[in-house]
Amino acid sequence: MSELINYHAKDLKEYIIRFFTALNVPEIDASIAADVLISADLRGINSHGIIRLNSYYGDRLREGLIDPLSPLKVIKESPATLALDGGNGLGQVVAYHAMSRCIKMADKAGLAITTVRNSNHFGISGYYAMMALPEDMIGISLTNSQPLIAPTFGSQRTIGTNPIAVAIPAGQERPYVLDMATSIVPIGKIAVHKKTGQSIPQGWAINQRGELTQDPSEVIQGGALLPLGGPAELRGYKGYGLSLLVDLLSGVLSGAAFGNNVGKPSNVHNADVGHFFAAIKIENFRPLEFFKSDMDDYIRTLKGVPKLPGQDRIYIHGEKEFELTEKHLAEGVPLLTEVIDSLQQAGKAVGVPFDLTPVA
Amino acid sequence: MSELINYHAKDLKEYIIRFFTALNVPEIDASIAADVLISADLRGINSHGIIRLNSYYGDRLREGLIDPLSPLKVIKESPATLALDGGNGLGQVVAYHAMSRCIKMADKAGLAITTVRNSNHFGISGYYAMMALPEDMIGISLTNSQPLIAPTFGSQRTIGTNPIAVAIPAGQERPYVLDMATSIVPIGKIAVHKKTGQSIPQGWAINQRGELTQDPSEVIQGGALLPLGGPAELRGYKGYGLSLLVDLLSGVLSGAAFGNNVGKPSNVHNADVGHFFAAIKIENFRPLEFFKSDMDDYIRTLKGVPKLPGQDRIYIHGEKEFELTEKHLAEGVPLLTEVIDSLQQAGKAVGVPFDLTPVA
Repeated sequence: MSELINYHAKDLKEYIIRFFTALNVPEIDASIAADVLISADLRGINSHGIIRLNSYYGDRLREGLIDPLSPLKVIKESPATLALDGGNGLGQVVAYHAMSRCIKMADKAGLAITTVRNSNHFGISGYYAMMALPEDMIGISLTNSQPLIAPTFGSQRTIGTNPIAVAIPAGQERPYVLDMATSIVPIGKIAVHKKTGQSIPQGWAINQRGELTQDPSEVIQGGALLPLGGPAELRGYKGYGLSLLVDLLSGVLSGAAFGNNVGKPSNVHNADVGHFFAAIKIENFRPLEFFKSDMDDYIRTLKGVPKLPGQDRIYIHGEKEFELTEKHLAEGVPLLTEVIDSLQQAGKAVGVPFDLTPVA
Repeated sequence: MSELINYHAKDLKEYIIRFFTALNVPEIDASIAADVLISADLRGINSHGIIRLNSYYGDRLREGLIDPLSPLKVIKESPATLALDGGNGLGQVVAYHAMSRCIKMADKAGLAITTVRNSNHFGISGYYAMMALPEDMIGISLTNSQPLIAPTFGSQRTIGTNPIAVAIPAGQERPYVLDMATSIVPIGKIAVHKKTGQSIPQGWAINQRGELTQDPSEVIQGGALLPLGGPAELRGYKGYGLSLLVDLLSGVLSGAAFGNNVGKPSNVHNADVGHFFAAIKIENFRPLEFFKSDMDDYIRTLKGVPKLPGQDRIYIHGEKEFELTEKHLAEGVPLLTEVIDSLQQAGKAVGVPFDLTPVA
């Protein structure tokens, strides 16, 4: 039986920095990547956190499949637009710099878009969208990813679970932070069901023959995820349209790989992942104070809507993650013993033993 | 029994122009509004076409609830950003001018956003996104609308079916044109089921008590639509997040009404609808020829994906509508006899008899 052991977020972050620097990532970049990874664990999106330290990043750095120096290169620029080549660097580092530049451009131009080609998996998309919040901007972050979704009426993985992340500041209330895969569920969710021997709900995915299946193994062995909306009767082609949209903006517009050609973390060639970032300065459209008080109003109205039978709370997007972050900062980040085992193994291989003291 | 009678699109468009000019809309504006309305019928989105000529526009013009002169006013502008007040004008006219200006700004700045407050229902959102296509730009068009969707775990109409429209040019292939309500289905679809005495599929909507219902009357009498994704198990909160996002961008950012306060066409005060338009110049990011050939590639890959049992074709968004437009241009636009009756009534009231000759 796997068990949960809590570690201080600060300790985990420092460990990730040591791990990356041992793999020739400059310390300042290691610190950026560590912050993105640990933010995922803090926010409760542990599928995108430290659990992937080795399989998505460490292994590839060691095999020379990610450039530890993340040598970002400008392809094309204008005051409000910037096209970057990520130099096959660490996705988190590339994305952090791309969004930072986007925000700086938007501060002058009122809005800006930065595209990135030749990057790698960048962790949680919401991290970069949220970078706009302290600047009183709206932040948008999109990325493509390895093919997992079948298009409506198709039976094969062709499009990534390409997430949409948008962060919008409020006043007294917490910001709105949407960070959603465009499939119904991410593949990690299917893997968890397989691990725990549970069947999956009807409608999440299909098997290799294109039939709806409740067996998670069938999905993992050559099946495909369904886009948000599910079957055609419930308008799954809208979710298919959204996954495709994210790929057109982050893959095709940037000049990165797209569709079937986006690299899996296990491939032995460049992943050539593409990203799309945008920042919008609110003051260019409305006085900030009115915007923020309307945001608060809207959030309070939604929370006050009469509830469905058996429900006692309506959530705003990002709210659960803000609450989990507070909890995990106070009580530590819970890691499964299996995750700890794999971190210990990876740490040994890199010469950075995972020997942190759990929260008492 | 209702029957379909076909009319030439050109005749219908000219009729709409006569109808609007009789209501003091300047001819050039009447022509814009007519083009948007007839485009909906041509594209097969007849719920948003001539069927609404009187109930959404004519009635309100006659009662002084829409200003026929559509006096657009600039609130704030910079080279890439523009905030407009629609002057409570005809939504189509306001939106057409707002998107035209957005495209002109993007031609210089590489991208641009225009927000609009104090507007009215603008017809099909895709029309304005598609205006970017001949300029080799990506067009985005969002609008809020009267509250119809219940937030996840809520039982009451609070958010509009707020559509997302994005148009992206391709090379040899047809452009990608997403134009989707963020509910599973629009309210018009429920009304059609009621009219024809059919039940609706489980999952589309809830009744006044917040229970899933298959009775369309229950939905119309105080029930609510569910957001894309449907129940929480199938991740309806993502669709809720998207409806809310569209309202935050088109309602809150523009300074228009939002949520519960967006006017219904039957209300006796300004609707104060808000819009959001964006245009992105592709050449600022990548040479156009590469972008277009990648678009063609992607579209062909999707069409070549193995099909589900019983399916023989995979669609790209917008494709069905392009085919319907060709068909309707050749064979005429089919109108239900009931729609023709109501056009005849409305025409009489305005002094512009609906006396068109059907297609032979």
